[in-house]
Amino acid sequence: MDLTSLHLLSAAEAARMIRDGVISSEQLVEACLARVRELDRDVQAWAFLDPEYAIEQARAADGWRLQGRPNGPLHGIPVGIKDIFDTADMPTQYGSVLHAGRTPSSDATAVAMLRHAGAIILGKTVTTEFATYAPGKTRNPHNPEHTPGGSSSGSAAAVASAMVPLALGSQTNGSTIRPAAFCGVLGFKPTHGLIPRHGMLRLSRTLDHVGLFARTIDDIALLAEQLVGFDERDPDTRPGARIPFVEIAAEEPPLPPMFAFVKTPHWERTDTETKEAFAELVELLGERVEEIDLFPSAREAWDWHRTIMEAEMAANLTWEWGQGRDRLSESLRAQLERGRNLSAFEYQRALARIHPLHESFLELFEQRYDAILTPAASGTAPRGLASTGDPSFCTLWTLCGMPALSVPLLESASHLPLGVQLVGPRAGDARLLRTARWLAARVATT
Amino acid sequence: MDLTSLHLLSAAEAARMIRDGVISSEQLVEACLARVRELDRDVQAWAFLDPEYAIEQARAADGWRLQGRPNGPLHGIPVGIKDIFDTADMPTQYGSVLHAGRTPSSDATAVAMLRHAGAIILGKTVTTEFATYAPGKTRNPHNPEHTPGGSSSGSAAAVASAMVPLALGSQTNGSTIRPAAFCGVLGFKPTHGLIPRHGMLRLSRTLDHVGLFARTIDDIALLAEQLVGFDERDPDTRPGARIPFVEIAAEEPPLPPMFAFVKTPHWERTDTETKEAFAELVELLGERVEEIDLFPSAREAWDWHRTIMEAEMAANLTWEWGQGRDRLSESLRAQLERGRNLSAFEYQRALARIHPLHESFLELFEQRYDAILTPAASGTAPRGLASTGDPSFCTLWTLCGMPALSVPLLESASHLPLGVQLVGPRAGDARLLRTARWLAARVATT
Repeated sequence: MDLTSLHLLSAAEAARMIRDGVISSEQLVEACLARVRELDRDVQAWAFLDPEYAIEQARAADGWRLQGRPNGPLHGIPVGIKDIFDTADMPTQYGSVLHAGRTPSSDATAVAMLRHAGAIILGKTVTTEFATYAPGKTRNPHNPEHTPGGSSSGSAAAVASAMVPLALGSQTNGSTIRPAAFCGVLGFKPTHGLIPRHGMLRLSRTLDHVGLFARTIDDIALLAEQLVGFDERDPDTRPGARIPFVEIAAEEPPLPPMFAFVKTPHWERTDTETKEAFAELVELLGERVEEIDLFPSAREAWDWHRTIMEAEMAANLTWEWGQGRDRLSESLRAQLERGRNLSAFEYQRALARIHPLHESFLELFEQRYDAILTPAASGTAPRGLASTGDPSFCTLWTLCGMPALSVPLLESASHLPLGVQLVGPRAGDARLLRTARWLAARVATT
Repeated sequence: MDLTSLHLLSAAEAARMIRDGVISSEQLVEACLARVRELDRDVQAWAFLDPEYAIEQARAADGWRLQGRPNGPLHGIPVGIKDIFDTADMPTQYGSVLHAGRTPSSDATAVAMLRHAGAIILGKTVTTEFATYAPGKTRNPHNPEHTPGGSSSGSAAAVASAMVPLALGSQTNGSTIRPAAFCGVLGFKPTHGLIPRHGMLRLSRTLDHVGLFARTIDDIALLAEQLVGFDERDPDTRPGARIPFVEIAAEEPPLPPMFAFVKTPHWERTDTETKEAFAELVELLGERVEEIDLFPSAREAWDWHRTIMEAEMAANLTWEWGQGRDRLSESLRAQLERGRNLSAFEYQRALARIHPLHESFLELFEQRYDAILTPAASGTAPRGLASTGDPSFCTLWTLCGMPALSVPLLESASHLPLGVQLVGPRAGDARLLRTARWLAARVATT
């Protein structure tokens, strides 16, 4: 075993090897930390990382295993956590000077679930300011002149540069799918309410989702399986059975899946390379894909999303507005200002559209399609670090709370990754991963 | 068996007698219809009642039983339904000319649940305009010069005058507790989300509750037990086990219950008789009751309730506003106008207060008390039919979604009923009925 390349292992492989005593968690964490030392000066993925504390945690995990105590499915596996999830042992600063030095006293539910599964919290990854638009310090691992996307910039970049096999992010608009696509990793935003958000920065109850990053579909499934659950402190979670993500994602679909190619009203924003890449993908899929037009009402979804997001952000960031609006970015200040001026009537009208909109998509799935196929972004990661790019290709699916997955299937001529986004009906999360595996295999064998 | 007084039976007694073949559903319904013929010219409880169709339903129930088919717990029992619940076989007109002649094509979930339990839907009871303030035609059965209370005016009056043993109402502010108190029957508003509201007029998702009317605690329990359930079309319902209301309500409490007497900030609105009656009740309860002050934040609850109710009503009655605001009452028009002018920020701020407010009450219950004891209204039913009275003594509990029960324990010198309201923590519904039974017995034996 070449100990210097353990960081390249998938989480599933590494977990198996730790379980079998082939490697230790300490060796794995050491390899990841070496990778951080090697690359993070350029990538800047981490908001907080204490190497000694990480090693300490890994040694404790190894000790636990050697005593023959039960190991969780992620025993000894390092995970990066976006710096908007509370951690009892590390600062949580929301990417804002207003929360500099903030040290929560307990773990967010998702973090606690990961620890329960045996994971090592390696450190906190860079977020944009309050998980909105103003960029953090992170750069794209494929080209430091380009944005990594946002707002889960550090999580996407850390997984892409193999500093860590798994990371948590979030998505209120396009904050998981877009950076995953720009950095060339898998990004998964499960169904709204599937993963508890207690202890995660709250921007919008209606739109906030936990997001997942990994480099293989198996790892996305493994991570998702640990995180589904009911938490009475997140009123959108539901009691329900555990979902066998790993098992379902590994299955062969009973029939070759059928895809609905949706260009969305923002198709004209895509660049030529994206248009060409999707044309090739559609050709490759042949009779397994059909292009469909969105029903007219869906065209207004971007306005509804903006109304809901800005209204709820304004209410949730009341303290920040009162205490330090002069220390917010101009774009966030403008969002909050708009949010504060919205009427309760407009806000509720927008909220009321979500259910019928999802019902329309549900019909589509029930009639004929296994997944919607659509771009993850308008193109590859744009040059420059002043913006994290355009979330428009994520908005509709976030609004509907549908599961969405960005799969790094395509590449530009300049070797920047291009993400393909797959979207399924609510609660169809595990089947969406199964469909994605089929698609990835189909593309690989062509 | 005196067939002319079957209308006086409780639902539990009547159901048992029907099950045992002692009486038929047709005889019971005939007795109720005779009572309607006798009294409804004065009381005016019904918005729709087709006696022939009621008899037809009763005969079908009797036939079903004679064939030896399984009978539900309410087999053959007539129930009155407030005219804001959809019924597939009767008009549903919301107490507004704007919906005159409206005939829904399917039953509201609660109505379907009652039919499933074997109940006979006797007819539709009078509601105020859109279950808000403008009165319907109903009069108080104890004195036709007095209001029956509202908005569930007809349901309360029909049960009070023994035209029917059970009825459904609703409560968004004080629409079940107040008319129950004014008419001298039991009125029960279970925990928010316990009974599905699909197919019931929607004023406010946050505040709307299904309400229950009966003349005995056993009957309230029997009715509640049929109505608890999950309905995916009501996003506030939760999957969960059936609650054994009848069994728990019949139990003796393990210890004599402890009551917290809460005057609320509106105590000064109560009349002298109410003040005196409560002083006597508190004296009677001795060491089993303590007067407690509300925490200061609770004083704002009436404002939060009004903000939420008016904002949500404005959104939910958009069609009515657009199509016929000139045919709405002045008071409703003013409410909708205020609701349309609220900001999303104020609305969400009010919503955000509910959870911490309920948490404060929860502490109170956990520390020491089984139920809050408080007036159901500021006094007996006021003279006059232009107003249905003041809901202030219900607002706080409705806002918090806590179970509330009006028990007709007291009476004024003029022989009008005075309601005592008991309030429990959310999900403590069945225990609240058990506590109420203890209290009623204590008062009866003194």
